[in-house]
Amino acid sequence: MSTVPVSQQLAIGIDIGGTNTVFGIVDHRGDILYRGAISTKKHNNVESYINELYEAVLPAIEHVGGTDYIKGIGIGAPNGNYYNGTIEYAPNLPWKGIVPLCMLINTKFNLPAALTNDANAAAVGEMMYGAAKGMKDFIMITLGTGVGSGIVANGQLIYGHDGFAGELGHTIIIPDGRLHHGTGAKGSLEVYCSATGVRLTALEMLENNPAKTSLLRNYPVDEIDSRIVYECAMEGDEIANEVYAFTGKILGMSLANFVMFSSPESIILFGGLCKAGDLLLKPTRQHMEANLLPIFRDKVKLIFSELKEADAAILGASALVWELK
Amino acid sequence: MSTVPVSQQLAIGIDIGGTNTVFGIVDHRGDILYRGAISTKKHNNVESYINELYEAVLPAIEHVGGTDYIKGIGIGAPNGNYYNGTIEYAPNLPWKGIVPLCMLINTKFNLPAALTNDANAAAVGEMMYGAAKGMKDFIMITLGTGVGSGIVANGQLIYGHDGFAGELGHTIIIPDGRLHHGTGAKGSLEVYCSATGVRLTALEMLENNPAKTSLLRNYPVDEIDSRIVYECAMEGDEIANEVYAFTGKILGMSLANFVMFSSPESIILFGGLCKAGDLLLKPTRQHMEANLLPIFRDKVKLIFSELKEADAAILGASALVWELK
Repeated sequence: MSTVPVSQQLAIGIDIGGTNTVFGIVDHRGDILYRGAISTKKHNNVESYINELYEAVLPAIEHVGGTDYIKGIGIGAPNGNYYNGTIEYAPNLPWKGIVPLCMLINTKFNLPAALTNDANAAAVGEMMYGAAKGMKDFIMITLGTGVGSGIVANGQLIYGHDGFAGELGHTIIIPDGRLHHGTGAKGSLEVYCSATGVRLTALEMLENNPAKTSLLRNYPVDEIDSRIVYECAMEGDEIANEVYAFTGKILGMSLANFVMFSSPESIILFGGLCKAGDLLLKPTRQHMEANLLPIFRDKVKLIFSELKEADAAILGASALVWELK
Repeated sequence: MSTVPVSQQLAIGIDIGGTNTVFGIVDHRGDILYRGAISTKKHNNVESYINELYEAVLPAIEHVGGTDYIKGIGIGAPNGNYYNGTIEYAPNLPWKGIVPLCMLINTKFNLPAALTNDANAAAVGEMMYGAAKGMKDFIMITLGTGVGSGIVANGQLIYGHDGFAGELGHTIIIPDGRLHHGTGAKGSLEVYCSATGVRLTALEMLENNPAKTSLLRNYPVDEIDSRIVYECAMEGDEIANEVYAFTGKILGMSLANFVMFSSPESIILFGGLCKAGDLLLKPTRQHMEANLLPIFRDKVKLIFSELKEADAAILGASALVWELK
């Protein structure tokens, strides 16, 4: 048992991505005292991955005064199962099947560890250090390459009976709508409101309006992405503006459904698509409100995350540590 | 403070409907020891309603040994706000605006009281006495004149930040779909999967297939309801069978979305439409599974409530009492 006072305890946050793993040592205020990264992808063997991770983190632990100062390790990972501490069938990681990651980390570091998926970790981070500080009911939506989510109700993250709750990106918003090539589902939120979705909407609109001029036509089709669509929209391009209006409509309709589920105090948007600012936020808010029952209207704060994107993954993962019993 | 042992304590359950109010005294096992009813509708004044309710319940309290045996009073009511103990703008009750019902009951009976909406109360009842006994994550869906819901996650009912969470009947499943004359929304779950919705689907299918014979055509249009559609379906009527197949398809798609929200162990269906049994359950299950991400498939128990419909409202309301602090 550590003799370090609670207020001086630190947390290690590890975010495992398909390409790289980033980590940091974080204090109670959410300041990152030390940070580092290793390659995920080069390790086909999880044991060799854990070994390199340990070698990379150890100097950081010594730098802050040794393991006595560390309360534990929080890990954000795709397909992370909170209950079992396992990563299960993650398509973008080099390790197949079910990986008992918490157990491996715990054995190697001799520190308590907790793991969940990246969007859930982001929600805990937002509750601990960000825009959701003090909130007991909110929903975090991450709008990146995909659409992820973390749901907090009664002050607790909803993990569900199997540890996999909160896959709002895969809810169906347009029955028999656009095909999601990754999941095979038709009309899911993710296939419209991710960065990939914005690109697909732009390509569709260009194809469906062949006579309409657009700045987007100056770019090779392969290069058109959500950033280019945003830039063209800001220059007044009509099709590019329609793309964001449509994206906001679909997102707003979905958010209304989520509000009628858990009636959150706020919905916090995070990730690359948020760079579009009001271009995305205005239609999203309008269509969310329009689809809500009157008792829910004008109550939900729709806001952007307050965490820096570069820090959020580490902060979110580290925040799991403060919840450790 | 009562000196009666906890195991012998009883709960009063009161269910307030637009026409009548039913009540009962319930023990820990869910046996209803005494039951009664008064008119809701005749009382334009809530004070006179509370007075009649008190006169009606008092003999029941004396019958079981006096208030020492009663732990408290649980109330299920439309638009019930758990946090404030109020009924807010309930369109089908005679009292307008915000009614501080818990406070009025508490003052009159001198017993602690708790209130929530009827579907939430049904969920708590199911957790305490019914099919969800011991479950920490489940969703209750009531399929009656309307569609209601109660959501339990981490062993707690989700009330949301304002006390109104769990209005799944009003989530939009078909954007720009059928108009709900009550709410003005288009394409909500309730406008398809309530008893009213089944009737509307039948009328639409009859009108869209004028050349097709159907047993349903033997009934005056005004009389066609979900029960008649069920009976015709059981006699092999094609249109009637299609009505339930369509209803199950919409319900199943919606349930898949709910599963990806809170990943419940089970979804419990309750209410008049459940009389259709497998006619509704089979297509519902099929379309729920088809719309789930693989990690959620073949995991969720889709079952009917184990509570008798006549008892469920009283049991659900009474169950709130055992949660009182």
